Amino acid sequence: MKLLEDKIREVGRVLPGDVLKVDTFLNHQVDPKLMAEMGKEFAKLFANDDITRIVTVESSGIAPAVMAGLYMDVPVVFARKHKSLTLTDDVYTSEVFSYTKQTSNQISIDKRFIKENDKLLIIDDFLANGQAVQGLLDIAKQANVDVNGIGIVIEKTYQKGHDLIAETGIHLESLAEIKSLEDGKVTFVND
Amino acid sequence: MKLLEDKIREVGRVLPGDVLKVDTFLNHQVDPKLMAEMGKEFAKLFANDDITRIVTVESSGIAPAVMAGLYMDVPVVFARKHKSLTLTDDVYTSEVFSYTKQTSNQISIDKRFIKENDKLLIIDDFLANGQAVQGLLDIAKQANVDVNGIGIVIEKTYQKGHDLIAETGIHLESLAEIKSLEDGKVTFVND
Repeated sequence: MKLLEDKIREVGRVLPGDVLKVDTFLNHQVDPKLMAEMGKEFAKLFANDDITRIVTVESSGIAPAVMAGLYMDVPVVFARKHKSLTLTDDVYTSEVFSYTKQTSNQISIDKRFIKENDKLLIIDDFLANGQAVQGLLDIAKQANVDVNGIGIVIEKTYQKGHDLIAETGIHLESLAEIKSLEDGKVTFVND
Repeated sequence: MKLLEDKIREVGRVLPGDVLKVDTFLNHQVDPKLMAEMGKEFAKLFANDDITRIVTVESSGIAPAVMAGLYMDVPVVFARKHKSLTLTDDVYTSEVFSYTKQTSNQISIDKRFIKENDKLLIIDDFLANGQAVQGLLDIAKQANVDVNGIGIVIEKTYQKGHDLIAETGIHLESLAEIKSLEDGKVTFVND
């Protein structure tokens, strides 16, 4: 998605440790018009996947997921993150390890918000090691529903998340595919 | 806002301890079309307040704030919540006590995302004791910028948040004003 790639080129900051900071428009300050364009793009890319519901993880997934939900006319559910959770029968939970923060979180979704026969679209802001997506796939498995699509805002194609998803055969679309952050420079697959 | 009041009447659940659960459409599952209508309504209500930027707190404020930002054509910043924060010169921080969870969090906003001469609109999902709003007002004060509006999705008018804001003289608008949750029944100011 050219609009997004241009924005990343313009304001994205590459920091030591293979970090791309996009807090100017995505995960701290948010550019609502860009989010809306991203939502339209997701709606187009997953138009033939019979999606009935979008799931994401708080907080940075919420803005793109809600915009996608608006243009696809489906409800959105954001999984809650917890340091630790008192398990109850009311929620699906999964463990998500964050490589960036080197901590583990539990994510949970209330069982009322995934229905039998749902066809889920997972949306997230970043795909790197794929831990958040795997947590949501795990929850979908517990709920015994299909995941028909995975929509990512920014993918680091050289990390292991891409292959993990490829193995599942699920329709994956990333709006910006990054090939490298070497020498402090963002290189896209399209470049 | 009738659409929102109808939705609360339809699916809101009143729980012991003066709790109104709206996780079916606002703070766990999200109804994107309703969020968009709320965004339009906020844009109309604050059309004359010269707003340059919206601030909210993760996670439940994000969806309504981003929709308001879309229709007002201004950037949105969501404050991050932390258990405790290593203070740096780069962020504004404030302490927010949650009566619901009986815990204290720090919220923070990167100094790059509030500019000189900004006229802020604070948006949040609930107004009860007003702690989150006060934290954002505190951050605005540190940044030495004006807060020209406070937009709330659901206000419990009988709790102290309303009076705290009234004392500041800031333009307050709540899309649904609740007068009472007594006997497990939602009564609106408009009823």
